[in-house]
Amino acid sequence: MPNTADKTDTASAISFVPPSAMTLPRYAGVASFMRAPHLSIENPVLSEVDIAMVGVPWDGGTTNRPGARHGPRQLRDLSTMIRPKHPVTSQNPFEDRNIADLGDAPVNPADIMDTLESVTGFIAKLKSKGITPLSAGGDHLLSYPILKALAADGPLGMVHFDAHTDLFDSYFNGFKYTHGTPFRRAIEDGYLDPKRVVQIGIRGTMYDGEDVEWGLAQGVRIIRMEEVIDRGIDDVMAEARDIVGMDKTYVSFDIDSVDPAFAPGTGTPEIGGFTSREAQKMIRLLAGLNLVGADLVEVSPPFDPSGGTAWLGISLMYELLCVLAGSNATRNPNRKSG
Amino acid sequence: MPNTADKTDTASAISFVPPSAMTLPRYAGVASFMRAPHLSIENPVLSEVDIAMVGVPWDGGTTNRPGARHGPRQLRDLSTMIRPKHPVTSQNPFEDRNIADLGDAPVNPADIMDTLESVTGFIAKLKSKGITPLSAGGDHLLSYPILKALAADGPLGMVHFDAHTDLFDSYFNGFKYTHGTPFRRAIEDGYLDPKRVVQIGIRGTMYDGEDVEWGLAQGVRIIRMEEVIDRGIDDVMAEARDIVGMDKTYVSFDIDSVDPAFAPGTGTPEIGGFTSREAQKMIRLLAGLNLVGADLVEVSPPFDPSGGTAWLGISLMYELLCVLAGSNATRNPNRKSG
Amino acid sequence: MPNTADKTDTASAISFVPPSAMTLPRYAGVASFMRAPHLSIENPVLSEVDIAMVGVPWDGGTTNRPGARHGPRQLRDLSTMIRPKHPVTSQNPFEDRNIADLGDAPVNPADIMDTLESVTGFIAKLKSKGITPLSAGGDHLLSYPILKALAADGPLGMVHFDAHTDLFDSYFNGFKYTHGTPFRRAIEDGYLDPKRVVQIGIRGTMYDGEDVEWGLAQGVRIIRMEEVIDRGIDDVMAEARDIVGMDKTYVSFDIDSVDPAFAPGTGTPEIGGFTSREAQKMIRLLAGLNLVGADLVEVSPPFDPSGGTAWLGISLMYELLCVLAGSNATRNPNRKSG
Amino acid sequence: MPNTADKTDTASAISFVPPSAMTLPRYAGVASFMRAPHLSIENPVLSEVDIAMVGVPWDGGTTNRPGARHGPRQLRDLSTMIRPKHPVTSQNPFEDRNIADLGDAPVNPADIMDTLESVTGFIAKLKSKGITPLSAGGDHLLSYPILKALAADGPLGMVHFDAHTDLFDSYFNGFKYTHGTPFRRAIEDGYLDPKRVVQIGIRGTMYDGEDVEWGLAQGVRIIRMEEVIDRGIDDVMAEARDIVGMDKTYVSFDIDSVDPAFAPGTGTPEIGGFTSREAQKMIRLLAGLNLVGADLVEVSPPFDPSGGTAWLGISLMYELLCVLAGSNATRNPNRKSG
Amino acid sequence: MPNTADKTDTASAISFVPPSAMTLPRYAGVASFMRAPHLSIENPVLSEVDIAMVGVPWDGGTTNRPGARHGPRQLRDLSTMIRPKHPVTSQNPFEDRNIADLGDAPVNPADIMDTLESVTGFIAKLKSKGITPLSAGGDHLLSYPILKALAADGPLGMVHFDAHTDLFDSYFNGFKYTHGTPFRRAIEDGYLDPKRVVQIGIRGTMYDGEDVEWGLAQGVRIIRMEEVIDRGIDDVMAEARDIVGMDKTYVSFDIDSVDPAFAPGTGTPEIGGFTSREAQKMIRLLAGLNLVGADLVEVSPPFDPSGGTAWLGISLMYELLCVLAGSNATRNPNRKSG
Amino acid sequence: MPNTADKTDTASAISFVPPSAMTLPRYAGVASFMRAPHLSIENPVLSEVDIAMVGVPWDGGTTNRPGARHGPRQLRDLSTMIRPKHPVTSQNPFEDRNIADLGDAPVNPADIMDTLESVTGFIAKLKSKGITPLSAGGDHLLSYPILKALAADGPLGMVHFDAHTDLFDSYFNGFKYTHGTPFRRAIEDGYLDPKRVVQIGIRGTMYDGEDVEWGLAQGVRIIRMEEVIDRGIDDVMAEARDIVGMDKTYVSFDIDSVDPAFAPGTGTPEIGGFTSREAQKMIRLLAGLNLVGADLVEVSPPFDPSGGTAWLGISLMYELLCVLAGSNATRNPNRKSG
Repeated sequence: MPNTADKTDTASAISFVPPSAMTLPRYAGVASFMRAPHLSIENPVLSEVDIAMVGVPWDGGTTNRPGARHGPRQLRDLSTMIRPKHPVTSQNPFEDRNIADLGDAPVNPADIMDTLESVTGFIAKLKSKGITPLSAGGDHLLSYPILKALAADGPLGMVHFDAHTDLFDSYFNGFKYTHGTPFRRAIEDGYLDPKRVVQIGIRGTMYDGEDVEWGLAQGVRIIRMEEVIDRGIDDVMAEARDIVGMDKTYVSFDIDSVDPAFAPGTGTPEIGGFTSREAQKMIRLLAGLNLVGADLVEVSPPFDPSGGTAWLGISLMYELLCVLAGSNATRNPNRKSG
Repeated sequence: MPNTADKTDTASAISFVPPSAMTLPRYAGVASFMRAPHLSIENPVLSEVDIAMVGVPWDGGTTNRPGARHGPRQLRDLSTMIRPKHPVTSQNPFEDRNIADLGDAPVNPADIMDTLESVTGFIAKLKSKGITPLSAGGDHLLSYPILKALAADGPLGMVHFDAHTDLFDSYFNGFKYTHGTPFRRAIEDGYLDPKRVVQIGIRGTMYDGEDVEWGLAQGVRIIRMEEVIDRGIDDVMAEARDIVGMDKTYVSFDIDSVDPAFAPGTGTPEIGGFTSREAQKMIRLLAGLNLVGADLVEVSPPFDPSGGTAWLGISLMYELLCVLAGSNATRNPNRKSG
Repeated sequence: MPNTADKTDTASAISFVPPSAMTLPRYAGVASFMRAPHLSIENPVLSEVDIAMVGVPWDGGTTNRPGARHGPRQLRDLSTMIRPKHPVTSQNPFEDRNIADLGDAPVNPADIMDTLESVTGFIAKLKSKGITPLSAGGDHLLSYPILKALAADGPLGMVHFDAHTDLFDSYFNGFKYTHGTPFRRAIEDGYLDPKRVVQIGIRGTMYDGEDVEWGLAQGVRIIRMEEVIDRGIDDVMAEARDIVGMDKTYVSFDIDSVDPAFAPGTGTPEIGGFTSREAQKMIRLLAGLNLVGADLVEVSPPFDPSGGTAWLGISLMYELLCVLAGSNATRNPNRKSG
Repeated sequence: MPNTADKTDTASAISFVPPSAMTLPRYAGVASFMRAPHLSIENPVLSEVDIAMVGVPWDGGTTNRPGARHGPRQLRDLSTMIRPKHPVTSQNPFEDRNIADLGDAPVNPADIMDTLESVTGFIAKLKSKGITPLSAGGDHLLSYPILKALAADGPLGMVHFDAHTDLFDSYFNGFKYTHGTPFRRAIEDGYLDPKRVVQIGIRGTMYDGEDVEWGLAQGVRIIRMEEVIDRGIDDVMAEARDIVGMDKTYVSFDIDSVDPAFAPGTGTPEIGGFTSREAQKMIRLLAGLNLVGADLVEVSPPFDPSGGTAWLGISLMYELLCVLAGSNATRNPNRKSG
Repeated sequence: MPNTADKTDTASAISFVPPSAMTLPRYAGVASFMRAPHLSIENPVLSEVDIAMVGVPWDGGTTNRPGARHGPRQLRDLSTMIRPKHPVTSQNPFEDRNIADLGDAPVNPADIMDTLESVTGFIAKLKSKGITPLSAGGDHLLSYPILKALAADGPLGMVHFDAHTDLFDSYFNGFKYTHGTPFRRAIEDGYLDPKRVVQIGIRGTMYDGEDVEWGLAQGVRIIRMEEVIDRGIDDVMAEARDIVGMDKTYVSFDIDSVDPAFAPGTGTPEIGGFTSREAQKMIRLLAGLNLVGADLVEVSPPFDPSGGTAWLGISLMYELLCVLAGSNATRNPNRKSG
Repeated sequence: MPNTADKTDTASAISFVPPSAMTLPRYAGVASFMRAPHLSIENPVLSEVDIAMVGVPWDGGTTNRPGARHGPRQLRDLSTMIRPKHPVTSQNPFEDRNIADLGDAPVNPADIMDTLESVTGFIAKLKSKGITPLSAGGDHLLSYPILKALAADGPLGMVHFDAHTDLFDSYFNGFKYTHGTPFRRAIEDGYLDPKRVVQIGIRGTMYDGEDVEWGLAQGVRIIRMEEVIDRGIDDVMAEARDIVGMDKTYVSFDIDSVDPAFAPGTGTPEIGGFTSREAQKMIRLLAGLNLVGADLVEVSPPFDPSGGTAWLGISLMYELLCVLAGSNATRNPNRKSG
């Protein structure tokens, strides 16, 4: 597949430490995710990669306002303002793990089913090399093909931050694959264990509530925003950790879980959402879980050309990267030095 | 009066259930408020209507940054993203009550007094048919002619959310009718009972404070934002409910009560305002009062072309619609089925 | 199909004369196209309608930057600033013909083929009633189903203003229906007579030029922008009139034919395009042809929230309306009074 | 009247030469028009002033989209990018004449008639001191009170650049003073000699054309945009010079005469307008006429927060300043040195 | 030095009471800070001035996204919406103290060292006249030359609100003067007493943390945002007051301490920041300290053309003005009447 | 020097043919210039490169509105919409020549002289490998260090499109290196032969005209915009070709030569500029000259977040690339196949 990434064949040539803004100003250079090296999926050095950041420039599942296909580009642009070290934990994921930007997964804007298959294939390749994927959307439908690849060995748990359940059955004459249906499909197909799925931040006006009823019937734990406000972030996240336990777990973060004042650039905003402080804290409280992948979806640049939403999005992706790096290090303590 | 609404003469042809986004995508169709049927005020089917949504495209009372005249148009545009069912109460106002979009009240951008009279006449017609109005501004002066119509049988109570008291006496050489004076006029003219008026969220730098002094002298309860922060939403709203009691009450929601981070599209922003979560909660806590009308004002599209402020505004109008529908059902339990 | 249009059953109740901005300010009222009455396609009064303005809120054929699905909404919003009388010809199409807003054609954002069929069905209904359609996109793929309906009696000629030929064969693994392929399909399927097709304004970097070669081989006349600049608008339009002659002709106006300085709100801009003066003049020079329909496509509001592109678009739709009204009157001189 | 201008009482302290951007960067300093000294109308040094730049922050006559009241502020902001010397003529108006910023004329946003009177009074004071006014709007109604002051000695001629005639009789129930009526009033009241009035650039859809008919009947020369395109700028301006001759003449430049691609920030845009090059050239071709005042109106910042329209506006105000300075020097060759 | 300010030589001509928006609408007039009189630094009336508002239009120290040089202009523009009286304390600083806008400090966009010297000289002049400066940036480097002038008599304490420590040693090959280094330089040079410096709101990803380590080693108290959230504003501010005590103290407020949802217009945003309510409260809790100057920096208009960030910034400058006025009155109880 | 480019050591692995939008959608993938391969300057495959696209993210020479440092990033983003083949000549530069994106030249935002040296060094390396540079600014000062590197063998001719001469001597106390002085320095230092320099499009208000006088005295041909309008593009470009002749020539294109309606995103706009059609045509008329390098400068994204200016800029860079490719092929007919 043609792309613009390098095709270096000797691993020794690659440095996984991003250039510092002290030598290369933040606004300079071709923009890869957080300035990680941009590698082709064919690159032999992938055997040394622990975590891959991947774009999925796709919004073919969007039933309302499109534009999330432009998300990965804008997220990469803003990402060069990220510095490497975590301010609270002092963790430096770029030193702890080998992290790369694998470019964008192949998508076909004219064909949903073809795209679903391609994304699954792309993520499956990463999985086969033991690489943990951190994906940037794109609309929320993309979680489905990613889960399909990652759940090859059995259903996963999931911590899901969102204003919407995305548990609808179908739209528009029974169409089954939209950004409102990924997790219903993933549960039906056995990629998610509904009893280990927790949804946090659900809110907004409803069609008929059938999505919620179905989810509850499967055993999904749905924590509405009002409940979060009443109980507080710490209490809710403690419950979330209990639900998914220490088995393999995926994290899906829809930027529309955050309030539109903080994240206007998204297709289906709902008022009354999380603040950026709450969002940061919730992700930090995932540390120590057995996380096998994560995504951040629904950043839609045409609805926020200022880039503020993308800056929030990439800042949260950095937090996800840190907790993924921790999980990855726990699973593969010797890999980085290998 | 010429307009583009339908002029259906047989009620049986009208469905009051808005089309679902599952069949008509949210961005499709001519935009009426929340996709309710658009009816002319001459339409005989009005005898079946319980609640009317009305635009008042007017900012002739604005002393600072104009633009609120464009509010109803943008609110209708964003309103097609509203779904029918309330996420917390499961109330579906569109099933419980007959709700219509009555178009815009007649206004004259070149003549304030003519406009005040026209708006009063328009609302009076609705009142004569037993229809509860939910109005969308437009600037805050419009509450005055609406109150004039609704208070024909005696003064009303009011729950008023705002950064400003709007209790000024006059501006610019003694001019009496601006968006800073409606409630002084309404109290003077006996449309509001000042002892049953509560203002919540007042803040921002002051001229000389005479507005506040006058209000307090009449018995208006003014709850500054700092007091709200200290006591919390629940406590403040309990007091507000006590103040207005179970007599007829109007609700006026100025979008500038919300912080400019959430609602930049308004003419007189004041920092330090409500969050969207607080705004939602405050309106929900009006449920069960005896509400005879409501308005949401001061959304000014030129100061937020992104539509974020209008999305907040219409989301709060939906909350107002739900509490109005509850009050309407209590007063007229049989009407909808009639 | 549910929608919010009126369902008036007696024609006598309808006035086809839009309200004047002298009585209803331009920013007031529910926004239908140019304030024409908004009628459902089921409305019996359709038998009196001569020209229908129709939205097609669809961008499922877009291979690059989506957003044109929001075009009809923004075009309607801006359209209330249009006045009825033409400044050069003094023609008043709203007096000469009965003109209505038929709302939006049914679309399915999740299914291209279903949408193509629905749009064809919708336009076919109009055609069966003798109504000339003036459609507002949406992306350019929509011309295909419209042509399919209008060419039921034989292939049409077409004057096509665009930066791109839209004569590509396929995209992305052979996908046949995108906004780059409608006219190839329409020629292949016999809806257009390629020898009576003229494309004006073609420019911009090319993939391999196969689209141009194919078009030329069919007999399509492709007038590149450079040729227009050299020869001038009058000369080019004289040739265009010769090519289509007095047989039935369709007009398709892609807003990206205009320079991005004038029309930034579109998905595939190309520098070096028409000025607004040239665009106006070209359409005026279509007067007297035998026009059976027209569309204006690819206005994409997310790329121009200011509405400037939509204002240009609706101003050009007014020019199209005038030439359509002339053709319609020639074909049906007695209809309006009927 | 309170304002923030200086109240210097000794003329010797004032330098009329604006600070250079070579010493005070363009973005620095409190923004007066083109960095001219900001003087109060009470300042005794006014006896030395030849030309006054004045803001009229007013849009109370606007029947459509308001915002022009914010024009003077944004024009001043952008004006600090103007350098003193004319690139073609090498004229330096700031050396040739004493030029000051007189601040804003007093306006009352709540009272049209009061504002008209105040503006007339303000300009009359300038006239009494022999100062030529160059005014920045604000909406076009403001030309009326200015003409009233300047025509105290007899009717003036006028070169009027605009998309609209502004010769309407009344709006909304007979209201006589709006931004669509100033020149009808000025002709009726004898402030303009209609036979010495020429309007250039008229275009756009029409209500009923009564404004044009009335104007023609009075002897106003209306040159539509289509005529300008056909004849060219030079030819049209030669005719315009003939029409006004060498008697006293006013210039009124409505920014909406320019195409919305160049000037989106205005309330009533019309496509098909002048380019910036044409606008520049037309004003330069006024040199040598007997000009007694000028205005530039209808810049509406909320519709162009980028400031591009204001930059065009102030660049054209600089061109107006140069031709006014020439006329002023011809009338008062010795004044500057006095 | 050339500028546009007045050069009034008799103090009696100056009124220090800003014009009211009841007589001069908020959008009218040349914009000085909060409508205070605009005075030249050479003006003899400076002997009566207590507090000077000063712009420092400079971003030459910016290592990332420039634009703060435009801050003073936009802050002045928005500042005319400020009313004089404090809503909670009823303090009217404009009545209590003589407050003026001294224009912009001299800067040289091409030379950092020259600018540092000029700014120090400008502030030193104010200090020599007993005037308290309230400065508006500009980037944060400007605090360094201001502190240099104010600390002529000995090191100051400082309350510093910021997302970043600005305690870095150098950037880009050892460059010592950037907006990331001012307080390291100020401590090294003895202008700040590190044991009386408290930094509040620090957060965001880090390079290597050396800045924090150095600061802690000097005795600076660094209160990270997470600690603020845990302890609450009141508790943190009580500690801050203890740290600086009643000796001379400076306040530096970087707008990026506030969350980007509230303050998007800045060069180095960090998510998870203060709300506007918290920012307001923190400044109010400085009342009673011995404050000798303050600044508000890093408002960057190109990143928020809407002006929302500047509105927040000037609203906080008003709060700073009030606490400065209190300190000034305590130190010089008789000065205002003198 | 750290960067994120690949460091491939075997040339055979590189494809110089950019991926097609038919397989990789335009919005997908890490954005290099026109999707050319992104190579490090250390990469051995550089021996096969004919033309290098280089960013220079720098605006330290900007005396007015900064932001051009962000130009290369936004130009790369938009550049993925460029297709490979020229629409008029059918030239495909990517097939004719080996073209790569060499990333950004090293810059130091805190030190002008250091940056000038680094850029010269970077370009000198390219020159030593026989690579023709096409640079993207950044502000116009960057032309100076590029010319210094390219003129190592003797002074060059130059075709310079700009609104400003950039021939000033100094700014702000004699500072010699700003974006207004590069060509004065380049002539003084012997990098340009002034008799072979032609400047096209000069316009806008002037300080004192010394820059023009100096240029004329050296023999520079300055063609003001008014002359271009009078004579037409073809005539002017014929003269320009005569002036530079067939000796080595550089092309410098300042985006502010284009009218701000087409290119608002720049720091020093001047009204009355080129249209996009004229700009395209002028560059095309450079074909056949002996061009050794080119730049496109002053695109400033903060002043046009929509990307329209960058789209114009990159479209013109494509035109420059085509004429450079022609010159390169003439000089090195065998190189590409080597």
